[in-house]
Amino acid sequence: MPRNVNKEVIKQADAADCPLPLTRLNTAECRSETLAENQKREVKTIPAPADFPGMRSVVTFYLCYLPCMCLGVACVACVSLWCSRWRGGFAWDGSARQFNWHPVLMVTGLLVLYGNGAVLYRIPLTWGQNKLPWKLLHAGVMLLALLFSVLGLCAVFDFHNAAQIPNLYSLHSWIGIATTALFAMQWLGGLVVFLLPCSTMSLRKLLKPFHVWMGASILSLSIVACISGINEKLFFVLKGSVNGSQPYSLLPPEARFGNFLGILIVAFGLAVLGILSNSKWQRPEPNTEGVAYRPLHQEEDE
Amino acid sequence: MPRNVNKEVIKQADAADCPLPLTRLNTAECRSETLAENQKREVKTIPAPADFPGMRSVVTFYLCYLPCMCLGVACVACVSLWCSRWRGGFAWDGSARQFNWHPVLMVTGLLVLYGNGAVLYRIPLTWGQNKLPWKLLHAGVMLLALLFSVLGLCAVFDFHNAAQIPNLYSLHSWIGIATTALFAMQWLGGLVVFLLPCSTMSLRKLLKPFHVWMGASILSLSIVACISGINEKLFFVLKGSVNGSQPYSLLPPEARFGNFLGILIVAFGLAVLGILSNSKWQRPEPNTEGVAYRPLHQEEDE
Repeated sequence: MPRNVNKEVIKQADAADCPLPLTRLNTAECRSETLAENQKREVKTIPAPADFPGMRSVVTFYLCYLPCMCLGVACVACVSLWCSRWRGGFAWDGSARQFNWHPVLMVTGLLVLYGNGAVLYRIPLTWGQNKLPWKLLHAGVMLLALLFSVLGLCAVFDFHNAAQIPNLYSLHSWIGIATTALFAMQWLGGLVVFLLPCSTMSLRKLLKPFHVWMGASILSLSIVACISGINEKLFFVLKGSVNGSQPYSLLPPEARFGNFLGILIVAFGLAVLGILSNSKWQRPEPNTEGVAYRPLHQEEDE
Repeated sequence: MPRNVNKEVIKQADAADCPLPLTRLNTAECRSETLAENQKREVKTIPAPADFPGMRSVVTFYLCYLPCMCLGVACVACVSLWCSRWRGGFAWDGSARQFNWHPVLMVTGLLVLYGNGAVLYRIPLTWGQNKLPWKLLHAGVMLLALLFSVLGLCAVFDFHNAAQIPNLYSLHSWIGIATTALFAMQWLGGLVVFLLPCSTMSLRKLLKPFHVWMGASILSLSIVACISGINEKLFFVLKGSVNGSQPYSLLPPEARFGNFLGILIVAFGLAVLGILSNSKWQRPEPNTEGVAYRPLHQEEDE
């Protein structure tokens, strides 16, 4: 029983860790097996290119990735449309029109740009290439996402201060500010540990799972902050007493649109988390154990 | 370069897939290697028991699992305390005291019991044993969680109907009802596919990753629903005009306690999602490829 189990474990490891056909062939070649066993393996297990699990995995990836990107674009379009059509548009003058930048910048930065930056390494197109440019792009997209988020916070703080509304009292605001703070720490930590030449390869290997888990947690918190914020805003503005507007409970068009935006946000977030959680779509990492530290310009992969 | 890379991939597969010391020894024995290579491997790589990555992994698991369970207990205690101390306690008479069952039952069922049921297979104590009793316990805990959630929904529907408040209009309610519906479908699907003797082993293997991803998504949605619900409730009850209560914006004790409860909920949810996402803590699954379907009473593992 244990013999069968462990042989299968090795077989499964091949399929999971060698997602590209070429890599899979190399695995069979490089395994420390007898020649007879190698020949038997080649005859029995190498399928036609179209049947490679890796190829299927790549196709499945794009079938998930492309709709996910469309959901992200839809989130940005819908939050912009909500603020421009129902909430009076945009300005930077301390008025409610300045507040409108808050949902747009947070959804664009802390959710959509962040989600795109998070799944960058999962794109199979990038796997055969030097990792450094993609690492710089990952850091760049995340920096842009962070700047959008900080600007989004400035918009709401300015509006609150001008209208003499206290800052940071609601659970939404606590979750939102904590998410942005964690994001800033994650970005700085990522810069120091994974990009700048001041950390060892062993430290990078040690901290990578934590960086990945923290990244997914920040995205989850971002979804929580977005949904609680939209819910709160719809209760604030749809009171049924100001300017003859219908109350939220009667589900006027703005309420239905806001709820629909919330569902889009949840769908985008869960799709990104789904892509991140699929081990078959992780960038294959080469041997780094025992490799001496290499500074940034010499680095290819870790 | 490819030779090194692929040898390392196999090494890493050993560490990840064979978390128990005994299993790890068996892996070396069962691998299709020459005798000389096996001997070399044994001399070079078998560490002292305390150094086994599997043993470290098990210890790390319990260091995460036990605080996570404490967070769950704290969530149930705090939501009960909030409703009994500040919201007037509990009843089942259509009043606001019936509403109080809603947060308590949802947090207990859809979050804490659900989270406990989800991580059940990750407990290393269960790995060396027949899977069926643990599968029945997983289904049982999840059924209890579902019953608590449905009862929690009944509490709020009854209260709304008695007070003539419309049901299901807010984004919180849309997310909450969708989460409970997905949970019910997930439970029924899990029963049919993974427990009852009416599905094939290949179907189980095919659907298992989807079941796991959907399970984690339902937990994420549950966190979103809990946070948006607490945020909404605190705005409803802390208006600063009824019975001389202070407004939410001045952060009276109830507001601070409610926000603290929200943070506990987020911490518990992220801890459970972190445990679920760690591949080293997944129950090792034996070979099932090509195994004919076995009915429930004969089944040991899939």
